[in-house]
Order: sequence, then structure tokens, then C-alpha cells
Amino acid sequence: MPLYHAPVKDSQFVLQAVVGLDKYANLPGFAEATPDMVAAILEAGGKFCEEVLAPLNLPGDIEGCTRHDDGSVSTPAGFKAAYDQFVEGGWGTLMAEPEWGGQGLPYVVGTAVQEYLSSANMAFAMYPGLSEGAQSAIAAVGSAEQQARWLPPMVQGRWTGTMNLTEPHCGTDLGLIRTRAVRNEDGSYAITGTKIFISAGEHDLAENIVHLVLAKTEGAPDTVKGISLFIVPKFLVNDDGSLGARNGVSCGSIEHKMGIHANSTCVMNYDGATGYMIGEEMKGLRAMFIMMNAARLGVGVQGLSQGEVAYQNAVAYARDRRQGRSLTGAKSPDDKADPIIVHPDVRRMLMDGRAFNEGARALILWGALQVDLSRKAATPEARELADDLIGLLTPVIKGYLTDKGYDIATTSQQVFGGHGYIREWGMEQFVRDARIAQIYEGTNGIQALDLVGRKLALNGGRGLRAWLALIQEALDGTTDPQLDTLKAGLTRALGDVQAATMWLMQNGLSNPDNAGAASTAYMHLMGITALGHMWLVMARASVEALAAGADDAAFYETKLITARYYAERYLPDTTALRKKLEAGSATMMAMPADAF
Amino acid sequence: MPLYHAPVKDSQFVLQAVVGLDKYANLPGFAEATPDMVAAILEAGGKFCEEVLAPLNLPGDIEGCTRHDDGSVSTPAGFKAAYDQFVEGGWGTLMAEPEWGGQGLPYVVGTAVQEYLSSANMAFAMYPGLSEGAQSAIAAVGSAEQQARWLPPMVQGRWTGTMNLTEPHCGTDLGLIRTRAVRNEDGSYAITGTKIFISAGEHDLAENIVHLVLAKTEGAPDTVKGISLFIVPKFLVNDDGSLGARNGVSCGSIEHKMGIHANSTCVMNYDGATGYMIGEEMKGLRAMFIMMNAARLGVGVQGLSQGEVAYQNAVAYARDRRQGRSLTGAKSPDDKADPIIVHPDVRRMLMDGRAFNEGARALILWGALQVDLSRKAATPEARELADDLIGLLTPVIKGYLTDKGYDIATTSQQVFGGHGYIREWGMEQFVRDARIAQIYEGTNGIQALDLVGRKLALNGGRGLRAWLALIQEALDGTTDPQLDTLKAGLTRALGDVQAATMWLMQNGLSNPDNAGAASTAYMHLMGITALGHMWLVMARASVEALAAGADDAAFYETKLITARYYAERYLPDTTALRKKLEAGSATMMAMPADAF
Repeated sequence: MPLYHAPVKDSQFVLQAVVGLDKYANLPGFAEATPDMVAAILEAGGKFCEEVLAPLNLPGDIEGCTRHDDGSVSTPAGFKAAYDQFVEGGWGTLMAEPEWGGQGLPYVVGTAVQEYLSSANMAFAMYPGLSEGAQSAIAAVGSAEQQARWLPPMVQGRWTGTMNLTEPHCGTDLGLIRTRAVRNEDGSYAITGTKIFISAGEHDLAENIVHLVLAKTEGAPDTVKGISLFIVPKFLVNDDGSLGARNGVSCGSIEHKMGIHANSTCVMNYDGATGYMIGEEMKGLRAMFIMMNAARLGVGVQGLSQGEVAYQNAVAYARDRRQGRSLTGAKSPDDKADPIIVHPDVRRMLMDGRAFNEGARALILWGALQVDLSRKAATPEARELADDLIGLLTPVIKGYLTDKGYDIATTSQQVFGGHGYIREWGMEQFVRDARIAQIYEGTNGIQALDLVGRKLALNGGRGLRAWLALIQEALDGTTDPQLDTLKAGLTRALGDVQAATMWLMQNGLSNPDNAGAASTAYMHLMGITALGHMWLVMARASVEALAAGADDAAFYETKLITARYYAERYLPDTTALRKKLEAGSATMMAMPADAF
Repeated sequence: MPLYHAPVKDSQFVLQAVVGLDKYANLPGFAEATPDMVAAILEAGGKFCEEVLAPLNLPGDIEGCTRHDDGSVSTPAGFKAAYDQFVEGGWGTLMAEPEWGGQGLPYVVGTAVQEYLSSANMAFAMYPGLSEGAQSAIAAVGSAEQQARWLPPMVQGRWTGTMNLTEPHCGTDLGLIRTRAVRNEDGSYAITGTKIFISAGEHDLAENIVHLVLAKTEGAPDTVKGISLFIVPKFLVNDDGSLGARNGVSCGSIEHKMGIHANSTCVMNYDGATGYMIGEEMKGLRAMFIMMNAARLGVGVQGLSQGEVAYQNAVAYARDRRQGRSLTGAKSPDDKADPIIVHPDVRRMLMDGRAFNEGARALILWGALQVDLSRKAATPEARELADDLIGLLTPVIKGYLTDKGYDIATTSQQVFGGHGYIREWGMEQFVRDARIAQIYEGTNGIQALDLVGRKLALNGGRGLRAWLALIQEALDGTTDPQLDTLKAGLTRALGDVQAATMWLMQNGLSNPDNAGAASTAYMHLMGITALGHMWLVMARASVEALAAGADDAAFYETKLITARYYAERYLPDTTALRKKLEAGSATMMAMPADAF
């Protein structure tokens, strides 16, 4: 059985050294997030994840979900009881508004816990995770009456929510959707169509399921501009909030997937189901993107989460497994072999994981802070800056962290040799689960296009300029010679980002295919640089802590080693990425489609 | 159901342009391999793979193998019938010596077919594939009597063979093995112990299974120097070659694995089983390495095979699936959307696959030719050169091609978006199957250590010098300006290999941890450069064919496009890899083991 230990100490370090949580005590919700409160939440959340959710992860993968003939779906053994504990512990209410029964804590605190939930049991964490996405859309565009009706039971966890976008013939290109909404006399709509890949579309955890469904109204244009968003509950809801009749929506089948077996991925059939329009007619896509942006950060967290738990298990195995001798002489001469952690190539694999995970954790929490600041910062300028930054970095957090999280899960599996390939060791599950994060909520190719085709140029490139300035500022303020390697590496990476951006400006506008051809390399280039920025911030904080004679010197020294490793082994890739993207689109577009 | 089309035309191009098969007609076995004969074999082999094996791949994955209470194992439905057709078609006899019933064809021809078998159904292909490994060990170190007894039925395919190395507590470090061999009065041995991860250890395809088992004899040193190799058949064999009593070896369980579900991975229990020593006592490891080297090339083929079949399916999907519009204006204005192959980022994924697959095919067949030449070339010098080259490149072919084959399978899966994650589309199986190739027959970390710690310095670095000279010669002979990009890229890559080698000489000897820390990066650096070399050879042949007015100009033009893509998108990584390895081991070794 794989292990999991919530990295509470590291989360707290990031909240202090990178996020600087204490600086924002003047903002709504932050005042409550005192250091003691945050410590208590992280500790208790970590314990719940370690003791309740993690033990269900492997059995949940093996058992999977079961659809019964009546269309109902059972989650694996133990999931319902764990969900009840989740609700009872209030783990789904951390970030929700007090108005609807939430605790109103900063998004950044909730996000730290989200990582633990997802590391311990990604398939489980998706049930409440998707529900939070649905809640955010209702909170953003729902009427006061809709909010009052749907949000309290969803925040409580009595009901869950879903997002229904994809249809068999369309995923990325939502303009093609065929689901129809016909207005009823009472102002509700009759929704008819088929949606696929609906995560948590049907299950036995909650009393009701609130589907948010994209559909086209009668007479609306048959493009993305004709799409509206609807609330379609599994059970209709009476005026007093009690459940009424079963609605005309049902799960037609569940998918057999590579991973996240314990999360039901449903084909949902809407057969004249009663739905309620939410937000303005034909503005459905905009509302959906509110959910989507939050969801994309959550998917970035999933990338980290599988990298982290896989890394932890690889470390434990590398300390325990004995094969061969250290290249520099026996380290455990009384045993017949040394633990494999003595081998540099094993350490390379572990350090690859560690350097990524800690950098990713910092980037995610830094990004979550921007979400908080974009809503709550004291001045419009500060809100705008935070909004610019998180808008720019959202595709990078989703795309780069999930690509790399999958790599790290694979690399950590490799540490196990043959045992890594065997189900009972749990490592191959982390790889299979991690894989979906590169695909859903917009494939990583779509993230890259969003970055290069939209986010870069938004507001005349204001976001990018602000981000580059932040990094330059961090570099300029770094003088300690211990950080020379990292500073030099990040300086070069920053130069690569600037040169690649310049290349895009000069070549992407005249020929959009050049932007498309460059997009994924550019996203990775930004991702590597963004983590380098985080490492510089963390390394500086560690140097300062050591200089101040901090108690836990070993912790900070380890940070400095890992930061140096990041500089040595990650940052060199930025130049290769820049060169690749500067090759442009001519070669790949020269190939006739039928010659592939 | 995924598709598969054997790339016969490309294999033939490589056999002509890279291997130059016709130049070796004077060598044993090559005379028979006339162009017509080779064409007939590739066509018929491809057809068998497409029509018989490929349709069983997905069902075989879903059904998997079943172990019954009596220890017997059933392969999935259709496997036995397909195996009978395999035997009848003589597909297992291509490369075997005529003396034992084989066709005695060049290894390079058999290897071309091996790719098709593995692409069509990797789990199936492993049954005869492992048997061929066992045959090669018996052919190399068995006595004349042993060869006469065991080889003919194995070559015929009536019996199959296995390799038994790993035990629960040891894989890489075979010195730790505990299986014991006690000499019987009749000169045979009683073998007792437990072996794990035994591919094809028990199944219903053949009448008998010939296990090659590593064990320690009484009084032998309890290290690798005490290991001997034994033939342990499932059924004892009477003097007339008929099957006798069941031997004391049985399958205790089969593993639940990430992939290759249709190949039985067995725990084999030896309980005083009768075994026959093969080769000299306490020289078992050497004999095992004969199998292992051939097997490592075969595993490299598996890396390519999954990259190839995944790529083919991605191409078909990208031509068929319609989402969005080309960035440069609608390409199918009469449809509601363009096929996704118009999008540069989709083409990037396809070209990544194509450039790797075609380069890998060339490297594998070039390597297979070296195997042939090392045995059959006319002069001792030519045999030595070929042996040097394939010795050096074997870990690169195994390690780099399987790392990259897994990447390409993953990238091809990504082209499918959400459908790539769903079992029925078959793409996720390619990823899961590809994954094992990085692990078994020596993990890729072990390949990298073999390369850096042993192969590089062998005979004073003779092999490396010969290989570098080959590449330099190819560069020097390249003058066509169409190849300037590729020539410049490969020249830089070659410089990176030379610089990295120099660094290793200066830093790896004084501190072996530096060699270990550099090993994987060095292996990848060599792999990228080796494929670059192959691309230069193929591109030159294409330029020449076009200049000579070849019929199929489109084929050669496509080669030139793909060669340029390789130069633009693969070769830039060599410098990053060199920089990473030059960072040395200090940082990763500075980390206390308990600080991870």
C-alpha cells in the first residue's frame, strides 16, 4: 500500500516565504487566517487525507465505479463514508462565502488543502472539486434567488455539482454543440441532448446533483455565440428546498478509462429535462469560463499532487531497497548491499521530483494568492495587477504543471524498477491518474494556444510585462553569492522568455501558424522560468532564515540544495525550447496532410 | 478499434539506404536475402501482423491472462490460434540457424519483422520473443547434445523459452540471488527457489516451456561470481524427445500489471525441479548476458513499436476529427470545422512521432546489421568494428528508444483529447504497454550506467571513436545545401557528445558519482545524436534519389521535411543535456538521505 504524508511544513514555508500571508491581514477573510488557524487547518486537513482518503486510493482504483441497470452509480467501498466525514469536517466549505454557509477563508489556504486531498485520492477529490467549480459559476452569474436556492446545500456538501460541456462530436470546439433548450411556459427550459466525459455525473455520495449544462436556445446562432448555461438538477427542488421528482436526466453509461477509476465519468442523457437558465441568454460560454479558470488552477494542483505522492513513495522505496554498492565504496558494509538512494542516478530521479514539486507548490499558492488579490485587494490597481498575473499564468499552471507532474509520476515509478509496474505497489496508478490532467479542462495544447494567442497580448501585453518585471526585481535584489548559480540560470531563462516573446511578436502576427507552432514550447519555457522565479524567492528566504539563525537550519539548507539542483538541471532547457520555437511552422506545415 | 499498418515501404527504404543490404550478399545468409525475398517476407509478415495479431491487441488487454487453481495459465481468447498461425507461417524461424530448423536469414531482416509483431501486439510478440532469447543462450553456451535436444522444438515453436533472473529481493543486483542448485547423482541438479516477473513463465500456447534459470551451486561464492545457468523444462524430456513427467516448477501467481496484460508475468516456484547446467559452472551470468544483449535490442524495438502504432492512430484521428478552424483561415469551408491536422500544435505532436519513429527504425536496423556483421563479416577487423559499435549502442538503443517511445505514445494519445483516455480507443493501452520497456531487461538507469561505466571505456574507447568517426565521415560527405540545417545541427550535437565525453573522462574517473550523475543525460545525448546521424544518412539518400529522378518523389520529399524537423526540434536538446551533466554530482550527493 503506498504511503502519503501531507507536506504541511512545506506548505507553511511557502505561505510565509512566497505568499507572505501575514501582509494581507487587512483583506476580507485574511484576518481570520491567522498563523495558528492556518496551521490548525493544514494539520487537520493533512491528517484527514493521510488517514481517511489515502487508504481508499488503491482499493478505489481496483474496484472502480459501478453503474447499475437503473442508471444509478455506486462509488467504491468506503467512499460514501469518507465523503460524509469530508462534509462533517467542513473540508468543502473552506473557501465558500459565509453568506452560503462557507468559512470564507482565503483561496490560497483552501488551495493548500486541495493539494493534500488530490495527492491522497485524486478520484475522490474530484467529486467536491467539481462541485466547487459549479458553485463558483452560480455565485458569479446566478440570480439572488438561484444563489439562495442552490448554493447552501452545495456548500454544505449535501448536493454536488458538475460541468457539462463536451458532446460526442465536440470537445474543444464548443460552437458545435447540439444540446437544445426549449423554453417552457413557466420560464424554465426543456433540455435535450447528450453530454459525454461528465466527471462525477452520477454517484451515490450526495442527495442531489446539480448539473451545469451548455445548450443552445431556439433561434440562437449555431455557434459559440448561441450558447446558454442551465442548471439542471438530478432531482427537482420544491419551493421549501426539499427534493421533488426525478428530472429527465440520467447516466447512460460510464467510461472505462486509463485512470481515476473511482471517479465516475458519465455519458449523461438529457431527455427534455427541466433546466433553469443561469446568467444571460447566449452568454453561457462566459459563465462557463468562470468555472473553467478556477478548474484549470485545480487541475494544475492535480499535476503537482501526483508528482508529490509518487515522489514520496519513491523516496521511501529508495531508502529501503538494497541493490548494489555505492560507486564510491560500500555505505552499508554490514549489509549485502547498499540502499539504492546511494546511487546518483536514483538521486537524480528523486531530485527531479523534489525540485519540481516544491517549485510547483510555490507557483500554485502564489497563483492562488493572485486569485484572492484579484477579488479582494484594497486598490483597483492591485486587483488589476493580480488579475493580469493569474490570467497570464493560468494556462502555464494548468499546462506545464500537469505535463511535468505526469513526468515526475513516471520518473518516480521508475525508481521502483519492476515493482513500479505492478498494481499493488500503487505507483502505476499515480501515472495513470496524472495522465488525465494533461487532457481535461482544455488539453494542454489548448492551454498553450490560450497563452500565446490570447493571454500574451491581452491589454497590450500588460500581464507579461508585469510578470517579467517581478522576476527582474527578484533578480536585482539577489546578491548573496550562494545564489549565483540560480541567479545566472534564471537570468538566462528570463532572456530566453524575452527573446521568444520578441520572436512571437515578429513572426506570430504575420503568420498565426508560427504562433501555433511555438505555443507548447513557449508554455514550457514560461513554466520552467516561473518555477525558477519561485525557487529564487524561496532560496532568498532560506538564506535570510539561516542568517537569522533559524531553528531548523537543516530545512533551509535542503531548500538551498534543491534550488541549486533546479538551476543546474531544469533551467538549461529554456534555451533549447527557445531554439525549437524559433524554428517556426514552415517545416511542419510543409507536410501534405495525406503524407503523414 | 485501433488500426495498424506495417510500414513495409519505410523498412525497405532503410534496408536499402541505411543498411545497404545488397552490399553484403557475400555473407552467409545474406545471399538468400534477395530484394524479392525480403520484400515477400516483409509483405507477408506485415499482413499477418495487421490481420491476425492487431485485432487481438485490445481484446487481449481487456481479458488478460488467467491463472487457474492448478497453476495453469490461459492466454486471452484467440491467442492460441494466432500462435499456431505464427508457427505455421514460420515467423519464429526467420533468424534461427538452418541446423536447428531455422531459415538462417540475416538478423536485420528478422528485426524488421519484429517491429511489426510488436506494434501489432506487443504482449503476444513477447512469447516468441523471449523464446528466441533463450534459444540464443542455448546456441551460444549449450553443449552439442543440449543444442540438439532443446533447440529444434524451440525453433519450431512447439516449445517456448523464458529467462529467470529476478527474485523478490533482487533484480539489478543478481549477486543477491538465493535460488540454489544441488547436484544430483545423474549429473542433473535440483533447483529450489522463487523467481518473479517471469514473462511468459506459464501459458497455453506451447507444449513445453524451457526455463533458463540462474542459481547458485553448493559451495559457490554468494556473489555474482557464484551464479550458474540451468535449463529447467516444465515437462521433463525423454531420450526420444517426447515429453515425460511434469517437473517441479510451477506458476504460483500472475501479476496484475499496468500493461502487457496479455502476457503472463509469473511468480515461478522451483521446488527441487530438475535442471541441467548450461555452459560452465559459475559462468552463468556471462551466458545470461548473451540473451540479455539480444533482448535489449528487442526491447528497443518495443519502444519504437509502440511509438509507431500510436503515431499511426493519431494521424488517422487528426485527419478525421473536426474541431475549430485553421489559424490561417478555413480549410474545409463547407464543413462546420476543419480536421484538426490543420493545427500546427497537432502537427507538432505528429511530427514529433514521425521524426522519432523513422529515425529509430533506421537506428535499430543499422544496429541489427552490426549484430550480423559482428558474427559474419569477412574479416576479423570488420567483425570487431561491428561488435564495438553494437556493444556501445545497445544501451542507447534500449534506453533512449524506450524512453522516447513512451513519450511518443503519450504524445500520440494526447492528439485524441478525452478519447485518448478511454480504453476502447486503444491509445492508453499503447502508453501502458510502452511503459514496461523502460523498466525490464535492466532499467534504463542501468542501461545508462552500462554505457558510461563500461561501454565507453571498453578497449580504450575504441567503439566510441569508431562511432564518432562514422558520424564525422557522414558530415564531411554532406554538401547539398538542402541539408545545411541538419548538418549544422548534427555538427553541434557531435560537439556536445565530444565535450560531454571529455567532461566524463576528466570528472568521472576521479569521482565515479559524477559518472553516475551524468549517465542518463549522456545516454539521451547519444541517442539524439545517433538518430541525427541516421537522419543525415536517410536525407542524403533522399536527395540522391530525387536527383536521380526517382519515381516516388513525394516519399523522398517527405523524408527531407521530416529530417529538417528533426534538426529543428530534436537536436537543440543536446546542448541542454550536456550542460545538465556537466553540473556533476555534487548537488544531488549533498542531500542527506534522510532529508529527501
